[in-house]
Amino acid sequence: MSETWFTEQHAASGSSVGFRVRATLHEETTAYQRIAVYDSTDWGALMVIDGCMMVTARDNFLYHEMMTHPALYTHSTPRRVVIIGGGDCGTLREVLRHREVEHAVQVEIDERVTRLAERYFPELCEANGDARAELRFEDGIRYMADCAPGSVDVVIVDSTDPVGPAEGLFNEAFYRSCFRALGAGGVLVQQSESPLVHLDLIRSMRAAMRRAGFGACATLPFPQPSYPTGWWSCTLARKGTDDFADFRAADAAARPFTTRYYNAGVHRAALSAPEFLVQAFAGG
Amino acid sequence: MSETWFTEQHAASGSSVGFRVRATLHEETTAYQRIAVYDSTDWGALMVIDGCMMVTARDNFLYHEMMTHPALYTHSTPRRVVIIGGGDCGTLREVLRHREVEHAVQVEIDERVTRLAERYFPELCEANGDARAELRFEDGIRYMADCAPGSVDVVIVDSTDPVGPAEGLFNEAFYRSCFRALGAGGVLVQQSESPLVHLDLIRSMRAAMRRAGFGACATLPFPQPSYPTGWWSCTLARKGTDDFADFRAADAAARPFTTRYYNAGVHRAALSAPEFLVQAFAGG
Repeated sequence: MSETWFTEQHAASGSSVGFRVRATLHEETTAYQRIAVYDSTDWGALMVIDGCMMVTARDNFLYHEMMTHPALYTHSTPRRVVIIGGGDCGTLREVLRHREVEHAVQVEIDERVTRLAERYFPELCEANGDARAELRFEDGIRYMADCAPGSVDVVIVDSTDPVGPAEGLFNEAFYRSCFRALGAGGVLVQQSESPLVHLDLIRSMRAAMRRAGFGACATLPFPQPSYPTGWWSCTLARKGTDDFADFRAADAAARPFTTRYYNAGVHRAALSAPEFLVQAFAGG
Repeated sequence: MSETWFTEQHAASGSSVGFRVRATLHEETTAYQRIAVYDSTDWGALMVIDGCMMVTARDNFLYHEMMTHPALYTHSTPRRVVIIGGGDCGTLREVLRHREVEHAVQVEIDERVTRLAERYFPELCEANGDARAELRFEDGIRYMADCAPGSVDVVIVDSTDPVGPAEGLFNEAFYRSCFRALGAGGVLVQQSESPLVHLDLIRSMRAAMRRAGFGACATLPFPQPSYPTGWWSCTLARKGTDDFADFRAADAAARPFTTRYYNAGVHRAALSAPEFLVQAFAGG
């Protein structure tokens, strides 16, 4: 096709984000969703699921680094990591950059997401063959419910929006499974949409995490051009402590791998909430 | 009209941002540019100049607060402020929240921008009648060149993109005018586009500021859904010192006015550059 634009119109916020594309690389309907991959002119490969942008080759580093490194540098010794969702494997790659990690399981419900990532986003899948990596294709809600108590150090919920297959990942029952599966000092981190237009959802997630046994939460914003409003967030919860400021800043500063967005200063900065979030989260 | 979408396709980055709109409130061609105002369904009034989104009622607080408060809390005693551009008057309003300010001049080349802001964004214009405010409608480049040396504490360059009328605001000659007009410890701040897609421009601005006599610069990123990529920045320069960390944090924390994005923690956080900016600005 000639150059055109793929645009995601986000009805709930009346805003849209688009990229110029020059080819449709793939389209299919899986057992769970409709997946399309486009070749964009400026952002590389672009994967779209059910009309929502999931990942571009150019800007995914923002999301994947922020979904991973703050959580892993918050835990004292992150050896056992579970990723729920994360089918593009970019989060898995970032997790495995941490030498302390001994085992990282990615539990993606739709194997086709990973197979298409291997073809169109090979750079995100470069750690899939790591001996510490385990790729499972099954329901993440059941996986977490069946986890042995105290068997996990970090749970990363890298899912689609809270509709369809991912809906069950945003409620107290799921957070209770995570809480039980985590050991002492365990960390849960979940993508938590745009602070500018999904504040009700974020507050509801934080309240449900607390009811499930976690203490205070921290919501870390970061830029993400391919998601609605261009500004996104992850929300962290810790088992057994409410403190997010005592992350391993020295280790983060001396990290033995390269990053493009994350560093110790960015981690600390992301913990400084904008005033409207301070107000929205007052009392919790 | 029935509901439709206004979309800005940013050709240089192959990305677009759009808002759902339900009415065109105004359209005109002035001596300088084409201005349109739409009524959006979720973001309030939306002003567009030459096809580029300028301001929405809902998200302008991010831009206006970050264009103002970091600069004014960096200066020890900001009494005399010049705003170049800023025709929607939102920056002027934020400047006048600072009690130390004795005189704030807004120098906008196109009076029609301000007249339309008064009609469609009255909340941004609520300080226009302040006795300390002076609204001038003339060329900002000439205004800065004619300023008495040392007569200004803070210069805020709140302009459109560096094409058309604003092109002359992004070069060494203009920065030399600013440097001469500023007193000791004077602060220059300029909107500096998206760190994700305009990095060459930002580096060129910083280099030109240094050649004009300023020391090191600081580029502070912030979210802005209505601008390309949803992530924007301002760049600060100081006359006589390279230090941006010693801003008046206690005053910022005890500010006698309300904000929605800015606070002392956000100010400090914005000074922590993401890793790719650390690399891009290494050596300058």
